[in-house]
Amino acid sequence: MAANSNLDLLQEMQAVANAVDSQFDLLLAVPEDPRAVLFKAMRHAAIGGGKRLRPLLVIATSRLFNVDQVSAIKAATAVEALHVYSLVHDDLPCMDDDDLRRGKPTAHVAFGEAEAVLAGDALHALAFDLLSDESTHPDPFVRTEMVSCLAQAAGPSGMAGGQMMDLVAENETFDLQTVTRLQQLKTGALIAACVEIGAILGKVPSEGRTGLRGYAHDLGLAFQIADDILDVEGDEERAGKALHKDEEAGKQTFLSLMGLERAREQAKMLVEQAQSHLSSYGDEADMLREIAAFTVERDR
Amino acid sequence: MAANSNLDLLQEMQAVANAVDSQFDLLLAVPEDPRAVLFKAMRHAAIGGGKRLRPLLVIATSRLFNVDQVSAIKAATAVEALHVYSLVHDDLPCMDDDDLRRGKPTAHVAFGEAEAVLAGDALHALAFDLLSDESTHPDPFVRTEMVSCLAQAAGPSGMAGGQMMDLVAENETFDLQTVTRLQQLKTGALIAACVEIGAILGKVPSEGRTGLRGYAHDLGLAFQIADDILDVEGDEERAGKALHKDEEAGKQTFLSLMGLERAREQAKMLVEQAQSHLSSYGDEADMLREIAAFTVERDR
Repeated sequence: MAANSNLDLLQEMQAVANAVDSQFDLLLAVPEDPRAVLFKAMRHAAIGGGKRLRPLLVIATSRLFNVDQVSAIKAATAVEALHVYSLVHDDLPCMDDDDLRRGKPTAHVAFGEAEAVLAGDALHALAFDLLSDESTHPDPFVRTEMVSCLAQAAGPSGMAGGQMMDLVAENETFDLQTVTRLQQLKTGALIAACVEIGAILGKVPSEGRTGLRGYAHDLGLAFQIADDILDVEGDEERAGKALHKDEEAGKQTFLSLMGLERAREQAKMLVEQAQSHLSSYGDEADMLREIAAFTVERDR
Repeated sequence: MAANSNLDLLQEMQAVANAVDSQFDLLLAVPEDPRAVLFKAMRHAAIGGGKRLRPLLVIATSRLFNVDQVSAIKAATAVEALHVYSLVHDDLPCMDDDDLRRGKPTAHVAFGEAEAVLAGDALHALAFDLLSDESTHPDPFVRTEMVSCLAQAAGPSGMAGGQMMDLVAENETFDLQTVTRLQQLKTGALIAACVEIGAILGKVPSEGRTGLRGYAHDLGLAFQIADDILDVEGDEERAGKALHKDEEAGKQTFLSLMGLERAREQAKMLVEQAQSHLSSYGDEADMLREIAAFTVERDR
């Protein structure tokens, strides 16, 4: 990628981050009643910070099909709400027990544990409220397909299942195949759902999404390998969260199983493979291509 | 109500409970991989026990409009999945810290805290997965309307908001108006959603649901007053959960604010009022009428 187009991606990311923040700001106006703390905790977790990679994927994919960008931003915000809920719950003392997230105290540190559980739950529901809302897309079939896609990515055969495997990983030694499966559920399923939702918004029939699915699958794995590398080599301040957690917990990762050099090579190979799945698209898929490159070049 | 028709209701409740259990049994087949514990925790929380009042309301309402009963059972199971998730999270040590639920150890006691958080999260997602699934209803508009209705009942202006108010109630003294608002969010919103979803399945337009909404509103309040009375006067073994919790936490309830006699009268009045909202329906609404009577006559 030329340095020039890379700059465009960073601008694009900033624009998406701002748009998502604006949506959350509107959706989460703090009421003057005893629920105020809940809304404040939701805002704390949802607004500001994060790469907003998932919303970006929804939007970049939707642009392949000239989707109305108001629809895309709303669907992207729903996906981010779901992602943020999962971060809030994963950070809980009974889970990964993290104090820092996106450079801020985690929700339970800032608001209390019960409040964090509830803020996560409320963001979880908000995601489906948004996707099913008429203002997000006029076609009920599009809305219900997006809901179905996201619900599956979140459930026991998606994110929740992956997080369960991650808990088990603290006490069992997983092989590469099992770690791959864990990561496909824990992070891959939602990344795939973002691309899928972009295509659903574009009314692409399921059989027309094969290339995009291949792209999302390889991107998800590349992203996770890069994450494992950053967990070992990254800078905590830049990352805005605690690192070296997997190592300390004695969990097997792509890095521990493959070694640094092979992991790097594998990530690069996956990025190229992800991009090759987009060969039937022209310039309009450049943003998706750049996102793939970015996932392994990023420093946070 | 004649003793005879009351017997029918108990039979109906048992049939609904069995149908919902069968659905959960099919949906939550335990996989032979590290996610097994998650599915076991979900099954523990979802299968067996409980009055299944919410699924019963979906089914009883759907029968007013000759809805296909396979659709009704699936939607009813989705609503129960959402209700069960909320129980699992409400029982957590950081929330109400309960050890007993539906006569069994709570999910976090039986499986661990992290597992309980995840089982709740996974049941939350499952509810929306079910409602948006084509096999639940062929019409995408019906599916997306049900999702929207349930998501709002679950979110910060529904159940999650009510539970937040309940946390605040431990440290603040609420008046009757605020307790009413708390309960409308915490339990009323989901009860209203059950009736609404029954009507959505029947393709009743929003403006045709006024009577049913009135019924659900009054039923929800009657249910909560009866719950507050049972919390003081009920039998723990019969209830299958710890009682006297509100009293111990120093929370204001309908009972503490109105006194036992007035609370009983109020509950009875609300039941009659709920039933009066059904005056435009004939015998086909008898089950809804009996459910209303049951909510205040029950001993658990």
